[in-house]
Amino acid sequence: MELWLPLDSYEHQHRYKYTALYHALRDAIHAGTLVEGTRLPSTRELASQYDMSRGSVAQVYDMLLADGYVEAHRGRGTFVKGAFRIEAQGEQEAVIQLSPWGERVSRLDTQKRTESVSVQDRHIIDFHVHRMPAGHFPTSEWKSALAAVHRSDWREQSGAAGDPELREAIASHLRWTRGIQADASQIVLFSGSMQGITLLAQLLIPEGAQVILENPGYQGIAHAVNACGGRAVPAAVDSQGIIPEDWNAQTLFVTPTRQFPTGAVLGLDRRKTLLAWASKRNAVIIEDDYDSEFRWGGRPIEPLKVLDREQRVIYVGSFSQTMIASFRLGYAVLPPGLVQPLLAAKALYEPVPPALLEQRALAKFMSRGGYLRHLRRLTRLYGERHAFFVQEMVHQLPEAFTMQPGDAGLHIYATWNGSPDGFLKFKTIAKEEGVLFRDAERYQLIPGPPAVCFGFAHLEKEEIKEGIRRLRLAWEKSTFSFH
Amino acid sequence: MELWLPLDSYEHQHRYKYTALYHALRDAIHAGTLVEGTRLPSTRELASQYDMSRGSVAQVYDMLLADGYVEAHRGRGTFVKGAFRIEAQGEQEAVIQLSPWGERVSRLDTQKRTESVSVQDRHIIDFHVHRMPAGHFPTSEWKSALAAVHRSDWREQSGAAGDPELREAIASHLRWTRGIQADASQIVLFSGSMQGITLLAQLLIPEGAQVILENPGYQGIAHAVNACGGRAVPAAVDSQGIIPEDWNAQTLFVTPTRQFPTGAVLGLDRRKTLLAWASKRNAVIIEDDYDSEFRWGGRPIEPLKVLDREQRVIYVGSFSQTMIASFRLGYAVLPPGLVQPLLAAKALYEPVPPALLEQRALAKFMSRGGYLRHLRRLTRLYGERHAFFVQEMVHQLPEAFTMQPGDAGLHIYATWNGSPDGFLKFKTIAKEEGVLFRDAERYQLIPGPPAVCFGFAHLEKEEIKEGIRRLRLAWEKSTFSFH
Repeated sequence: MELWLPLDSYEHQHRYKYTALYHALRDAIHAGTLVEGTRLPSTRELASQYDMSRGSVAQVYDMLLADGYVEAHRGRGTFVKGAFRIEAQGEQEAVIQLSPWGERVSRLDTQKRTESVSVQDRHIIDFHVHRMPAGHFPTSEWKSALAAVHRSDWREQSGAAGDPELREAIASHLRWTRGIQADASQIVLFSGSMQGITLLAQLLIPEGAQVILENPGYQGIAHAVNACGGRAVPAAVDSQGIIPEDWNAQTLFVTPTRQFPTGAVLGLDRRKTLLAWASKRNAVIIEDDYDSEFRWGGRPIEPLKVLDREQRVIYVGSFSQTMIASFRLGYAVLPPGLVQPLLAAKALYEPVPPALLEQRALAKFMSRGGYLRHLRRLTRLYGERHAFFVQEMVHQLPEAFTMQPGDAGLHIYATWNGSPDGFLKFKTIAKEEGVLFRDAERYQLIPGPPAVCFGFAHLEKEEIKEGIRRLRLAWEKSTFSFH
Repeated sequence: MELWLPLDSYEHQHRYKYTALYHALRDAIHAGTLVEGTRLPSTRELASQYDMSRGSVAQVYDMLLADGYVEAHRGRGTFVKGAFRIEAQGEQEAVIQLSPWGERVSRLDTQKRTESVSVQDRHIIDFHVHRMPAGHFPTSEWKSALAAVHRSDWREQSGAAGDPELREAIASHLRWTRGIQADASQIVLFSGSMQGITLLAQLLIPEGAQVILENPGYQGIAHAVNACGGRAVPAAVDSQGIIPEDWNAQTLFVTPTRQFPTGAVLGLDRRKTLLAWASKRNAVIIEDDYDSEFRWGGRPIEPLKVLDREQRVIYVGSFSQTMIASFRLGYAVLPPGLVQPLLAAKALYEPVPPALLEQRALAKFMSRGGYLRHLRRLTRLYGERHAFFVQEMVHQLPEAFTMQPGDAGLHIYATWNGSPDGFLKFKTIAKEEGVLFRDAERYQLIPGPPAVCFGFAHLEKEEIKEGIRRLRLAWEKSTFSFH
C-alpha cells in the first residue's frame, strides 16, 4: 500500500502540485500521522503514485530537509526527524445523542474488570473462577482436529445457526448425557452463552415488561434484561433453588441444574410448578445450564427442558468452561417456533458466523470421543480438588463461613458467619496477605448477607492449602482487631 | 459421562426402583432418545450410577429383551433394537409472544441464501462476489503467525474492545494507508463489520427516527436500521456518489470511498457538504469502507473521517474480504465519546471476545509486514482481472450493459440497457447456460432500472472469458425471442 496523503484538499489551496505535496507532508508530520523515524517512500514511488516528476518530489524532500522535518541517510532513505505533533486547534468534539437503548446500555457495568492487587512481593493465590490450566487440555488431540478441518475445506457453508456438523454433535451429546430430545435444527450456536441470552432477551422482552430473575443470580442476565428496558423482579432462592410463585410475568431466567451462584439443585416438585406457571401465564423459561458438565457425585441432574411438553423452555449451554481459554462457544436449544426469529436476529449481527474453523474442529473432537474423554478426566480432577478444598476449609477455617458444597461445578458458595463490617475487614486483610476471591455481593439484585464464591478447580492442592492458610490468618487478624 | 435417565420422575410413579428403570429405558427407546443400534451401558455401570444391584439391572435388561426392545450380543453387550419412536401425544407447542424488536427483526430477510442452480451437467461460472481462492493466501506465513501466538499465552487479557496489539496495528495501518489519525483506544474490533454496524444502529437510532441511507445501498444496513424501528430515508446516488441534501435526520450511513454497489467515488465538495450538514443537524455519519483496500489504479481515496474535525464520523472497516474464508473481523474508529457506550453494548453480547487467538495472529501478521505484502499481491492480481473483465465485456457484449468500472474493489456494477422484462428473460437463460450473477435489485430501497453486480476477483481469466461468452449467448437468445 502506498503512503496516503490528502493531496486533493491541498491542491485546492496551493497553486503548484509540489507545494501541495510539501504542505501535505509537513502537516502529516505535525499531526503525528508520520511519526518520528518513519521512512518516507522513495522519490520514484511518490512520483508515480501522485503523477509527478521525480525531480518535483526530490525538491519537496529538499525543502523538508532544509526545514528540519526530515533527515536523509545516504543509501537508506529519508526519515521523519522530530516530534512535531501539535494539537488540533479549538475544534470541539460533538456531543452525540444516544437512543433509549444506548442510554440504558451505557449506564450498565457490563465490562469485565480484573481486580488489581497491590502486593507484589509474594505469590498470589486467586480463588476467582478461572479456566482450566493449559496443562490439562489435550492440546495434541485438539490440534489434530483443527488440522483435519483445516485441510478439508476453505469455503463458507454455514448459515447464521453455525456449523451443521457441530449442531448434530451437540444434539447427540445432549440426548446421551442430558436426556434432552432435540433436533439439530433447533440448535443455534453463539460466541459464548451471553450472546444467546442477550439476543433472546431482546427477542422476548418488550420495554417495561416484568422479568423474573433469581436472587442471587448472574449479573450478565440482569444486564441483558435492563438493556431491553425490562423490569427485573428478584425471586428468592433457598437450598432447593428458586422458590416458585405465581409471578405476573411472561419471562423467567433460571439455573435449575446448579443454581448460580449458590449451587442449589432445583427439586422436582418445583420444576413441575415452574412449568405449570409458564403454561398458565403463557410464559417462556430460559434455562441456563452454565457449568453442570462437571459432575463428580450424586445423580445426573434432570434439565428442566426434559420435562417441557409445551416447548416453553429454552435450554442454554456453553463450551466456554470446558475448552481452552481462547475458545468461546455457547448454544441454545430452541422451541421450533423461535428458530426463525432468533436466526434472523443473529444474522443481523453476524451474517456469516465467526470461528467456523473452531466449530468444525469441535465437531470432529466430539465425534472422535475426545471431548467426552477430556470431560471425564477434568471431572475426576475437579472432584478431587473440590473435596480437598472442603476438607481444608473444615480443618483450617471452620468458623468464618457456612459452605454450600455440591456435586458439580467450578466454585463453592459460602456465606459469611460474621457481620458485614467484619467481612470488609477480612476481605481487605486477605488481599494484603495475597489471597483473592470473588465477593458474591455483585450477584445480589437486592442486598443480602455477605457471601463468597471460591473457585477451586484451577488450583493445585498445595495452592488451595496455602490459600486457606492465608484466609485463616486474615480471619484471625480481622477478628482480633475487634478486641 | 453416563447415560442420563429421568429416574427421579419414574420413581414417583413406580413402587420399585427396577420397574422405574424399566419404564425409563423403555420410554427413552420410544422417544428416540436411545436410537437403534445404541449400546446400553453394562449392568455394572448402570448399577453403580443409579445405586442398584447388578442383579436388578440385569433383570430390567431381560424384561426389555423379552419385550423386543433390545437385543443381546454375547461378549459385545446389549443394543437397542427397533425404531419404536412415537410422536408426542396431543401436546401443543406454545405460541410465544415476541417483543416489538423481535417482531421487527423476524420480518427481516437477514439470512444469507445461496442461489441454487438446476444445471448439473456443466461447469458453473459464478460472478457473485466471493472470497479469494485459497491458493492466493500466504497460508504458511499465516500459520507461522498463528503458531507464534499459540505458544505465547493461553490466558485472557483483553476486554470487549478486542486484542490491544491488533488495535495498535490497525491504528498504524490506518495512519499509513488512509491518513486517519486515530488512537488504538478509539478502535473496537468486531466479528465482521455488520456486528459493528448493527450495534451502532442500536446505540444511535431511537424508534421512529429518520435515518439516511444511500439508494442503491447495502441491504444489511437497511436491516439494522429497520430492526431498531428507524425509518430508512433513501438518498439518491449518481456517478459522484451520494447527492447531499439538508435531511431532517441525525444519522447517515454512507460509503464515500467506493459507493456500494455502484463504485462511485464521492467528490471532495460533497464530502465537505456532508460534514457541514452533520454539524448543522448535530448528526452522526457512519462511513463504511467495505472494500477499498484493493485499489489498483488512480489516487488513494480520502476517507471522510480524515476531514472530520468534530468527531462526527465513525469509520467502519473490515478484514473479512482480505483474509481466509473462515476469518471474520471488522472494526470501527469511534469518536472518543462513543467508546464507552459501544464497549458496554458489545460486552453485553460478548464479555470475552471470541477468536482472540486469530486477533493476536493477525496483529503478528501485520507487524511482520505479511498483511501488506499479501494485499499488494492480491491488488495486482485483482487489477489484472478487472481489466480483463472490462475488456472482454467491451469485446464480446458491448450492447447489453453500461458498466461503471472503477479503480478498486471486487465487483463491477453494470446497468441493463434493455427493458425489465428483457432482463428477467436474460437472467433465466443465463442461469440455464450455467452462469450466475448477483441481480442488484436487492440493493434498491426504492425500485430502479435493472442492474447487476459482477464479481470478477475470484475467477481465472479463462473463466471470465467463458462466463462472458455465455452471457453473450443468453443475451442473443433473450433478444431473439422478441422477434
